[in-house]
Amino acid sequence: MRLLLSSGGNSSLSSKQKTILNTQIEELFRGLDEVIFISYAQKNRIRYTTKVREKSWPLKNIKLIGIEEYDDPYDAIKNAKGIYVGGGNSFLLTHELYENKLIKILNDVIKSGIPYMGVSAGTNIACPTMMTTNDMPIIMPEKLDTLNLVNFQINPHYHEGPVWLKNEEGYVEHNGETRAQRINEYHQNNIIPVIGLFEGSLIKWQNQKGKLMIGDAVIFHKGKIPKKIKNGTYLNNNLEII
Amino acid sequence: MRLLLSSGGNSSLSSKQKTILNTQIEELFRGLDEVIFISYAQKNRIRYTTKVREKSWPLKNIKLIGIEEYDDPYDAIKNAKGIYVGGGNSFLLTHELYENKLIKILNDVIKSGIPYMGVSAGTNIACPTMMTTNDMPIIMPEKLDTLNLVNFQINPHYHEGPVWLKNEEGYVEHNGETRAQRINEYHQNNIIPVIGLFEGSLIKWQNQKGKLMIGDAVIFHKGKIPKKIKNGTYLNNNLEII
Repeated sequence: MRLLLSSGGNSSLSSKQKTILNTQIEELFRGLDEVIFISYAQKNRIRYTTKVREKSWPLKNIKLIGIEEYDDPYDAIKNAKGIYVGGGNSFLLTHELYENKLIKILNDVIKSGIPYMGVSAGTNIACPTMMTTNDMPIIMPEKLDTLNLVNFQINPHYHEGPVWLKNEEGYVEHNGETRAQRINEYHQNNIIPVIGLFEGSLIKWQNQKGKLMIGDAVIFHKGKIPKKIKNGTYLNNNLEII
Repeated sequence: MRLLLSSGGNSSLSSKQKTILNTQIEELFRGLDEVIFISYAQKNRIRYTTKVREKSWPLKNIKLIGIEEYDDPYDAIKNAKGIYVGGGNSFLLTHELYENKLIKILNDVIKSGIPYMGVSAGTNIACPTMMTTNDMPIIMPEKLDTLNLVNFQINPHYHEGPVWLKNEEGYVEHNGETRAQRINEYHQNNIIPVIGLFEGSLIKWQNQKGKLMIGDAVIFHKGKIPKKIKNGTYLNNNLEII
């Protein structure tokens, strides 16, 4: 299985980090003539696919085809050579995957070796469930269970500490829960370990192990003190450092 | 129907605002000898009830009884004289309300005139659905439909613009969606109007109309420009200013 899982927020990457990202994408999809883009996390699929194709897709010799361009999305996934799932709203994305009966076939083809890239919501759904999303539940999916490609949960766009708001007088701390508190709430009801990927962070996952290629991350095991890791770190499927 | 709906974050209130809040709570529950506290939004219910009773419940002559103290929560709600639903995680709260078959009976008793106070998650569930929560989906409720006491949605802990993070070098803008963008996503799939209640804001709702008692708010109607309103504003059940 070959996965590339991005936190999203890639516009904040340095030019050196952007080069690493594009090199990894190129390596993942090398030799293919087309990749299917799953645009379901956004309402206007055609506009979303067009934007990604024109603004951020780095492989000009590999055609990026929106899933909305196929008559039969199930057949499209069944015959896919490469899969890229974009960000937006994870509830909407998961809802549409269930509506189109794509959960099992996606799992099958990716486990058979078809390369997969996820960004933000596309990274959330690579996990056992989409329970560690930051998104608003704007639609109810059939289940929160997702592709289950890795044995851990990912919280994309992770950040430490409280957030601050800016007004005329300066910065004011907001009282909302921190991400670490929300992940702790998750662990009050669930035991699966969670990795919080900072904005722009990237995991390369192959053969049951992963490498943090860009950015830092924080690992949460239920009942243990969270552990910050640097890029270059290798992880196993239980989020242990190897 | 008599409701008091708080955004939460009440520790940030000025002492004048705290007085208004406590006066409103006193007025809502006046004449009762006990109020049921629904502690389901947090995992440790006994600890949560104890904390609220000791730290923030302002009515020392009215007993606050945690729902976990009753043998039969359904009977407890059926015979309730006043109801207060605390904050935490809205998915967990809604899950537990369905598990205990309390959605319909809560709706019945509150519509029959039993006074209701909600804070944060407790305010989310007063709406047709809990779709405008900020919480993480740590557990899957049977449905996202909630008490449907008002005809609009509330987004508690609302704030404008992007959030900022603080590191050694100062404040850095975070790339995540703003609340207004998330509410716009909600409106791509739903038509119900939404009010974003700033931290600490409070709505008093009686006889099909509401008054913003503390703080400001922003009103979102699908397809229209959001409208900021000041405390003292009166609203109808369609979130129109009256």
